[in-house]
Amino acid sequence: MPSPDESIHPVATGAAATTVALHQKPTEDGNELVFYSGWFCPFVARAWLALEEKGVPYQYKEVNPYKKEPEFLAISPKGLVPAIKYRGKHLHESLVICDFLEEAYPETPSLYPKDPYDRAQARLAIDVVSKSFLPAFFRLLQSQEAEKQAQALEEVYQGLRKYSERIQGPFYFGTQFTLADIVLAPWAARLHRVEKHRNFSASAVGPKFEQWVAAVKGRESVRKILSEEMYYEEIYGRNLCFFIP
Amino acid sequence: MPSPDESIHPVATGAAATTVALHQKPTEDGNELVFYSGWFCPFVARAWLALEEKGVPYQYKEVNPYKKEPEFLAISPKGLVPAIKYRGKHLHESLVICDFLEEAYPETPSLYPKDPYDRAQARLAIDVVSKSFLPAFFRLLQSQEAEKQAQALEEVYQGLRKYSERIQGPFYFGTQFTLADIVLAPWAARLHRVEKHRNFSASAVGPKFEQWVAAVKGRESVRKILSEEMYYEEIYGRNLCFFIP
Repeated sequence: MPSPDESIHPVATGAAATTVALHQKPTEDGNELVFYSGWFCPFVARAWLALEEKGVPYQYKEVNPYKKEPEFLAISPKGLVPAIKYRGKHLHESLVICDFLEEAYPETPSLYPKDPYDRAQARLAIDVVSKSFLPAFFRLLQSQEAEKQAQALEEVYQGLRKYSERIQGPFYFGTQFTLADIVLAPWAARLHRVEKHRNFSASAVGPKFEQWVAAVKGRESVRKILSEEMYYEEIYGRNLCFFIP
Repeated sequence: MPSPDESIHPVATGAAATTVALHQKPTEDGNELVFYSGWFCPFVARAWLALEEKGVPYQYKEVNPYKKEPEFLAISPKGLVPAIKYRGKHLHESLVICDFLEEAYPETPSLYPKDPYDRAQARLAIDVVSKSFLPAFFRLLQSQEAEKQAQALEEVYQGLRKYSERIQGPFYFGTQFTLADIVLAPWAARLHRVEKHRNFSASAVGPKFEQWVAAVKGRESVRKILSEEMYYEEIYGRNLCFFIP
């Protein structure tokens, strides 16, 4: 009998299923690019957004990272998604994959602003998400006691307010959608579940953040990779998708 | 009376003092670049190595980050070094500064390998240093009990062995000295103190790592920014320089 983690819904649904269907065949541009994904995972979503934003040809392969199939372990030794195979070589880590796509496909739309100082600010924004927001967000989800939840929620707000300081609106760098947005976008698309289960409120972060969330949720690439709500809720209930590092 | 942290030796000595003396004047190339440094700090050393490797004109300013002078806090709100001022704008975080220098001075020698896949591997090496080596190294320094020291030492070895897997030799990417080296080089130059105080042995990591350490310690840029040993020892004794995040 499979463990509950293995019995996760096996495939993307809704808009994401349509996107997946468009990427079943091996790439035909001479650059082998296989994208190993878990439809539900927000870290996967970063790399997926980068692929969609850049319009890079890719072949989508659904993997259940909790199953640790030998074939997948050969590609991603820790069995983590996202992972890619590019011309026979493997890569993992969501942000490393995004930077790789940026540099391996220089002719596609850039995921960074052009100015070197702005690019540095994008990296600082990514740092804030990694070091301030995400650890607090995981604590918020894991906490069962009201007091600990309240404390974690306050830390989530602090991280998001720090992130928001430099939002130009609607996106982090104005009209350009960059890695500074992508790094946090998967969680923006999932915030309504912490609104429901943890009293989170985007308006408590501030109006700039609220507008940013609305803009991100309206972004075509973000909409294209979302599955049907009921399947996230099922995963949320088991505290799964948020804990893949 | 100043706190012990404030009474840190105020200036670089030895080879580093010579390098500092060469960088006292404002830059004359039209790009204002002030480098706010603490001569003893390994995180500062990363940015300093990037400046020296790229041959970027810079003005050196010594800051005692434990003093938190108002003038410096205006530049680096948390009072952390390294920080830079570039054309009136401020930046902090050692790796963000290194990437900024790479992109703001594209005509200087690159700190990354050329191939996009190798560049991704450089970023994974940086990740290993940040997530595996450094936390274990800090635990090793902070631990006072023999058992905890032994455990932390084993974790330090694990992190360094993971880093070493892809060392091509003498440097991470062969003859090119890149950010994959710079990210760890300041600690390589300081390892003899953990050899003395914590039973660390580079040979226990493996021969590839030992050769890498020797190559790094022989690198001109690394030698140019080192102060006299006795002053590091004094700082080591107070457990200072290693704890600036």
